[in-house]
This record gives sequence, C-alpha cells and structure tokens, in this order.
Amino acid sequence: MPHKLTRIRRLRDELRPARRPVMVAVAGDSAAGKTTLTRGLAEILGPERVTTIGVDDYHRYDRRERKGLPFTALHPECNHIEIMEQHLQLIATGNPILKPVYDHGTGLLCRPELVEPREFVLVEGLLPLHTRLTRACFDIAIYLDPPEPVRHRWKVERDTRKRGYTAEQVLAELERREPESAEFIRPQRSFADVIVRFSPIDGDPPGTPLSADLVLRPTIPHPDLSAVLADDGHAIQLRLTRDEDGRPVDTLRIHGNVPAEESRMVRKAIWSRLGVDAGDPPETLGGIGDDVHSEPLAITQLLLLYHLVTAAR
Amino acid sequence: MPHKLTRIRRLRDELRPARRPVMVAVAGDSAAGKTTLTRGLAEILGPERVTTIGVDDYHRYDRRERKGLPFTALHPECNHIEIMEQHLQLIATGNPILKPVYDHGTGLLCRPELVEPREFVLVEGLLPLHTRLTRACFDIAIYLDPPEPVRHRWKVERDTRKRGYTAEQVLAELERREPESAEFIRPQRSFADVIVRFSPIDGDPPGTPLSADLVLRPTIPHPDLSAVLADDGHAIQLRLTRDEDGRPVDTLRIHGNVPAEESRMVRKAIWSRLGVDAGDPPETLGGIGDDVHSEPLAITQLLLLYHLVTAAR
Repeated sequence: MPHKLTRIRRLRDELRPARRPVMVAVAGDSAAGKTTLTRGLAEILGPERVTTIGVDDYHRYDRRERKGLPFTALHPECNHIEIMEQHLQLIATGNPILKPVYDHGTGLLCRPELVEPREFVLVEGLLPLHTRLTRACFDIAIYLDPPEPVRHRWKVERDTRKRGYTAEQVLAELERREPESAEFIRPQRSFADVIVRFSPIDGDPPGTPLSADLVLRPTIPHPDLSAVLADDGHAIQLRLTRDEDGRPVDTLRIHGNVPAEESRMVRKAIWSRLGVDAGDPPETLGGIGDDVHSEPLAITQLLLLYHLVTAAR
Repeated sequence: MPHKLTRIRRLRDELRPARRPVMVAVAGDSAAGKTTLTRGLAEILGPERVTTIGVDDYHRYDRRERKGLPFTALHPECNHIEIMEQHLQLIATGNPILKPVYDHGTGLLCRPELVEPREFVLVEGLLPLHTRLTRACFDIAIYLDPPEPVRHRWKVERDTRKRGYTAEQVLAELERREPESAEFIRPQRSFADVIVRFSPIDGDPPGTPLSADLVLRPTIPHPDLSAVLADDGHAIQLRLTRDEDGRPVDTLRIHGNVPAEESRMVRKAIWSRLGVDAGDPPETLGGIGDDVHSEPLAITQLLLLYHLVTAAR
C-alpha cells in the first residue's frame, strides 16, 4: 500500500504546513538543576514564545506499579521511550501532541494534555538524549553535570521540602538509583553541545557562591569571547582543553565571586553579539528562587540564550 | 532547518521500519451497531491479529466540562480531531500510539494506553471519516446507517441497561444531539465504501428479524456474486441502483427471514472467492449478544471479511 502512504503525506503537507520550532534539550539527573535553568530561559524569552515539555511524564508505570519492578524510574524500560521519540519528532516538525501527564505529587498517571510547539521548545528530563532519534530532534543539547555531592544536597532539600520525603528516604533512593544513573543518565553527557557544572572550587572560603564550568563543544558555533576574555587570571576564564574523552573543547569558568563589573562586561559582550537592538541584557537573568541571584547562572543563561536566538534565525 | 527534518526521517526509516496494517473505519451515530459489527469481525479474524480503536476516546472535555458547553460530544470542537488524525496516520503507517482513554462509566478522561497496530486495525466511533486526512488512512470505510427509529430504540435499550440513564433522559439527549448528528455524523455516509443498514421491511409480519441493505460503492472491488444471485425474487438480492446522491451503486439486500439453505449458499460463494483453503465459513458469524443469531449480519460480516482479507494481500 505505498500509494496510501503517499496520499497521507501529500494531504498532510497540503493541509498542515508546519513551522518548525527551535528544540532545546536540558538533560541531567534528578535535582541537577534542570527546572531552574529551563524556567530562567523561559522567563527571558517570554512564556508566550516558549513551550516546556518534561519528558519524565513519559513514565510507563505509576508509583504503585513501580514498587513491584526490578528497576527505578530512571530505566528506559520504565518509560515509553518510543512514544517519547515519536512525540519529539512531531513537536520538532511543528505538530501538536497529546502528552501524557505524570503527577509527581500523587505518583499517578492522569489525563493527557494538548501541547503545541511555540517558537522555542525546551525539553527537560532524565532521558531526552537517550536515543539517536531523540537526539536528532534537537538544535541544542544541554547536560547539567553538578558534582554528585552537590546534586545529592539539592535533591535532599527539594524532596524533603516539596515531595514529603525524609532525608533518609531520599538518600536511600539515591543509592538505589546509582547504577541506573551511571548506565543511562550520565552517558548522555557525551551528546551535549554545552555541559553546565555548578560546583564549589577547591580553596574557596566557605559561603562562596557556586562557580560555573561550561564545556562548550565545537558541535555548535559558540560566540567568540576571546576579545573580552583575553587576559588570564580573572574570575571569568575561557580555556582550550580536552574533555574527559580527549575531544577538544572550550571551557568557560565563571567564578562564584566574580566582580559585578567583570560580569557585566562579559554579559554585554554576549548580548551585543546577539545583534538585538535593545540596550542591556534582561534583569531576570541569574535568579534562583525568589531573591537569590547567581552571576555564574546569569552568564550561563545568557550564553544559552545566544544559542537559542541564533538557532531561530 | 530542513537538514534536521531529513536527519529525523532518515533515522526513523532506518531504525523503525514499519509494517502497515489494514485499516478499517466503522463509522456511525451513537448506538448504530458499531461495536456489535466490530466485535464480530475481531472474533472471526482472531483477537491476536486485530487492534480495535475507539475514536470516541479523543474527547477534548470530560462529562462535567461538557455540561457548560454549547455543543454535544458529537461536535468536532468537542474532540481532539487533529490528534485523532495524527494517531490514525501513525497507526496506518505501522507505528504505536499513546491513545487517550475516555471512561464511559465515569465520564472522566484518564490514563492513556499504549496501542500497537496488529495486522488489522478496526477504528470505530462517531467521527472516523470526518476529515480528508483521516479518510486517507483507511483501506475500507464502513458506515452504519440504521433508520432513526431503530437506532433510537437501540440507544434507549443500551443506555438504560448499561449506562444508568432513564429512557426519558436518553430520548432528550437524542433530540439535543440531532442537529449535530445531521451536520457532522450523517455526512460521513458519503465517504463510505460499504453502507450497512439493518431495518424492518415494509409488509413484514411483526417479529420478523431485521433485514440488511448493503450499499456497495464501486470505490473498492466487491466480490462478484452475480452467479449465485442470478434469479430475482429470492431473499438475497443484488441490484444495480443509484444512491441518494445519484451515484451508481450495487445494493445487496438480505431479508431477515432468509432461508438457511439460501444463506448458506451465498456465504459459501463469498467464502470460496476468498481463496482460503479451509472448508466452511466460521461458525461465529452473525452472533448478537449471547445467543441471538442474525443471518443478514452473518452475510454482512462475511462480505466485510472478504474485503479485509483481500486488502491484506
């Protein structure tokens, strides 16, 4: 029946001309900071231009069903990976989807929701870069890679505050998940264009805000910052290095204590390379929660914003 | 980004080679007999070869939400038509879907379910032939067209028995739905390859089983029954006529009181044209509920079976 396939495709192209969005993956382990980063980007771009999709909604089993299973929610077998691939393809080609919904509060799968792609689609979750087909859907792939002690602290804080667990339960769950984190989550790092690592730097006094180390893979064209970052020894440094696997990369380090003036200069430099006519970068950059601000986060978001906006052109 | 689309398509064709199923639409108004016909076909083919999809699951609103709306569940606005189109395209091209689920008992939308296409996919519901894109997905389109008094009687019987309504409620609902039946459901008749009408025939004594009138449009090749149905005046008649809209059609009438011997002869004739090696047509043909049997239904099912099996070749 190849005639039928042709008929369907012809009709579809005729009746549903699709406008393709910029697709961004924000991958990383549980509590790696995906939502903070994604929410910040959505705020800067404007919610009316952004669709956010959490691919952890593609859970195959609800919480009760998972209790009897030999793997955790991190395992691909525990997720509708093929449907996730299908939905990402649909969204990437400008089509709506009826997305499944997993309620993190009750642990139940519930009524799906209609999701339409806006200009930018931010896809965050545990496994967005897990298969070749999902990876083919993205214009920019980001992996969040905090050191494990930092991530564990973040997870304990969030899950005890928002999800009703005790610290002991969270730590036991982290231990239970570790083999699957190693097998399925962390290998996604090697498929990212940008790897973001918020961490303390050895030798910093206690209370120093976290620094950011960004690995910038030459898989996408990064803005040329060599002019503003010419001198070594400052709080923002660009270095040519090799990644864990030996591949050449740029790394951009933004120290947690970066002076405001230096940060402002770098932000202006990235902003000007965007070619947007407006004067200064947005003020909401770098917000964590209600009134905590992070300069390294602000520069990270601005660099990612640069990629989103240039990909849209 | 056309390169991205190409990359996605290449990968998809490489990684997910799809086997396309035979797609059958069974359209018709509420209580027109869709489930009885579909279940009968699925039994004959064998459940392991059949996927049944009820497109009434694509309701956009649950029962409570519909209460405040100016249209009934029959209205396309009340359904995720674009998602229905998308899912039918996916299934028609051999892909799985995560299908929404509407619970007719509670009137709630609930957890979606994974549906994979088997060899035959039977798609029943109110609006499967509503759009050009859905119609392009089917190999065979069937429309159930009982006279309105018969359908109303069936609906009252079913909804009072199985869905907890009173007869008055069902009749009021039928009246409320009538404008949308006329506007959206009945126009689908003109897109069907086979129209099935179970009805009493004028002049039959009370208690005569319903007869079947099948309109066989020349849009698909029907089995040549002229040899077995040469003489006029029998209980099974094939006639060249014009349909309501003037288009030429064959109509096959199977009288409710067809003698067993005549029915058997016609069934054997259709069966032999299938070229299946087994001797006799299946015994389960024509079953309605637990122990009611209808010869007109048996012949109808066999004719449809002929089309399903030939389409699969």
